[in-house]
Amino acid sequence: MATALARVAIVGTGLIGGSLGMALRETGRVVHGIDHRPGRLDRAQERGAIDRGFPSVAEGAAGCDLVVIAVPAAHIPPAACEALDADVRIVTDVGSVKRPVVTAIDAWRPATSHRFIGGHPMAGSEQEGVEGADPAMFLGATWVLTPTARTSAEDYAALRSLIGEIGAEVVAVEPTAHDELVAVVSHVPHLAAGTLMRLASGRAIEHATLLRLAAGGFRDMTRIAAGNPGIWPDICASNRDAIVATLDAYIEALGEVRDVVARGDRNSLAHMLTEAMVARRALPASAAHAGPIVELRVPIEDRPGLLGEVTTVAGELGVNILDLEIAHSVEGGPGVLVLVVPEVGADSFEAALAERGFRIARRSVE
Amino acid sequence: MATALARVAIVGTGLIGGSLGMALRETGRVVHGIDHRPGRLDRAQERGAIDRGFPSVAEGAAGCDLVVIAVPAAHIPPAACEALDADVRIVTDVGSVKRPVVTAIDAWRPATSHRFIGGHPMAGSEQEGVEGADPAMFLGATWVLTPTARTSAEDYAALRSLIGEIGAEVVAVEPTAHDELVAVVSHVPHLAAGTLMRLASGRAIEHATLLRLAAGGFRDMTRIAAGNPGIWPDICASNRDAIVATLDAYIEALGEVRDVVARGDRNSLAHMLTEAMVARRALPASAAHAGPIVELRVPIEDRPGLLGEVTTVAGELGVNILDLEIAHSVEGGPGVLVLVVPEVGADSFEAALAERGFRIARRSVE
Repeated sequence: MATALARVAIVGTGLIGGSLGMALRETGRVVHGIDHRPGRLDRAQERGAIDRGFPSVAEGAAGCDLVVIAVPAAHIPPAACEALDADVRIVTDVGSVKRPVVTAIDAWRPATSHRFIGGHPMAGSEQEGVEGADPAMFLGATWVLTPTARTSAEDYAALRSLIGEIGAEVVAVEPTAHDELVAVVSHVPHLAAGTLMRLASGRAIEHATLLRLAAGGFRDMTRIAAGNPGIWPDICASNRDAIVATLDAYIEALGEVRDVVARGDRNSLAHMLTEAMVARRALPASAAHAGPIVELRVPIEDRPGLLGEVTTVAGELGVNILDLEIAHSVEGGPGVLVLVVPEVGADSFEAALAERGFRIARRSVE
Repeated sequence: MATALARVAIVGTGLIGGSLGMALRETGRVVHGIDHRPGRLDRAQERGAIDRGFPSVAEGAAGCDLVVIAVPAAHIPPAACEALDADVRIVTDVGSVKRPVVTAIDAWRPATSHRFIGGHPMAGSEQEGVEGADPAMFLGATWVLTPTARTSAEDYAALRSLIGEIGAEVVAVEPTAHDELVAVVSHVPHLAAGTLMRLASGRAIEHATLLRLAAGGFRDMTRIAAGNPGIWPDICASNRDAIVATLDAYIEALGEVRDVVARGDRNSLAHMLTEAMVARRALPASAAHAGPIVELRVPIEDRPGLLGEVTTVAGELGVNILDLEIAHSVEGGPGVLVLVVPEVGADSFEAALAERGFRIARRSVE
């Protein structure tokens, strides 16, 4: 079988774009790099991140099946629109915030925006630029896609499969939910780490020994603060409401801890820290799944927006779609959506789908 | 030369006590374990953490040169007093908070408390008990000692040297300053990590996918929350004032970040995050020192409390005392305190000591 999405153009050849280019080239795909700064294209080519460089989206996207937008947040919608205009099958991005991107593209390209599927790989490094690029960056990482009711199941399955080939695991989340969730697990943690580092650094002016007392825990907590701050004003601007709401909740929760410590309430403190310990120990160590799996087959004939609905239901229930494909019968027709999910949670997933009027056939796999 | 402090008793044979026992046995020392729970002594002996176990401090400390108290915070002062009563040369502890311990021992044993030198190794692990003990735990770690004006320079030098033998680097800090500093780099970070984990875990109830989106940064930031919460009510009770003050400062600083994000002030946000990045990148990677060093020689004849003063001055200036010994002249007499410090900072250290009336001789080393 021919490689799906065999020609990929990447707009922006920095840390993420470069890593993705390397990883895709390792799968045998042809990768076009698009950057308006020729020096960056040269460096990306030297690092083996792209096969060929182009100065514009129109030139680089021509003849490609997929365009990945890997530029700073504010530049994603215009670049995605240029890519949609170049008539490629699928356009995706790797930005940290999804609702504003999806909304802008829907507004600017209402006729073709269904070919845009928002994306966000939960991966990165403290390094910068293509010099820090690493084809292994996505191994075991979670990669969010935000299909909507207008996303074609075939396009979603093809993109999902490509991402799986470079070692990441796809989770489908509704764009607004994505933005609220990353405020909690990414944006506010980053701001909290930076604030803790600034607090300690300020105190170190009074007592120079302070930072030498920083053991592993402090180092771990502040590590992300060492990253390039350049992207954060954009992220904070585009996800402002969710970040402010989450910071408010964090400040309130810290205030409760402060009061518990101040009044010497040992039981409440022990309870809080035990809750945190249990939750941290339960944090999935990796996206990989072991255990029995089942296959759910859903006919997709007469159901527009089926894919967005199915993946949103899975996300809400925390059901991890391990594999997904569109099976077409030999007689043609719209076919069947085949979902592979862990047996654990499959019952509630099936029930939730049935409740929404889907017809589902289930079988155990091996 | 005979090993200094050749027989060591450790009260409490858990994670830290067990690790210390293993490390000290590797230096050829004889290690007594003291624990009132016989099962724990058996496990410590099986793990090679102690040579022999004793049920009481009086029995286990007899004939020892050093007793290390490695029990929970609330039990340190009584155990240290028992050890002082057993007439050992030096008693130290490994507790996370120092002022209450030093104050209690001074009050309860005014005649012998000068033989107690507070200690706090900035090391640990997420594991628990002697089962998690590791003789390499202290390699490269910073180990705080809190000598006071009444500490003998010889005792301090001997304890310092023993700690150096197991791979840790000693920093001398005044007890109250220690407690304020660890509130910033250890206690509040722990509470902040736990609070962040609880916040995320609460949100995960609404959206089960949330924790699968947690990438490396979130994992790093919350790692310490996975540790045993059992010690924290004690720590928070004994260091309450410093922790509450630091939490207040942290909450205030987070409020400023929140306001900057809410009003879309990109410049201030970039400035804050850049400050944090610069500070984090400057965080010393390890306690090890490379670079030119100098030797400062300070006669100690007529100066009570010299050691506490000298080490406090070094701590305030952030000068790392790389080596320290008491040189006695062949004619006897009180001798000279020899301090080895990095050339960087040696000038200001020497000036600060001279300002306090010390006579100092300086020479470059190698």
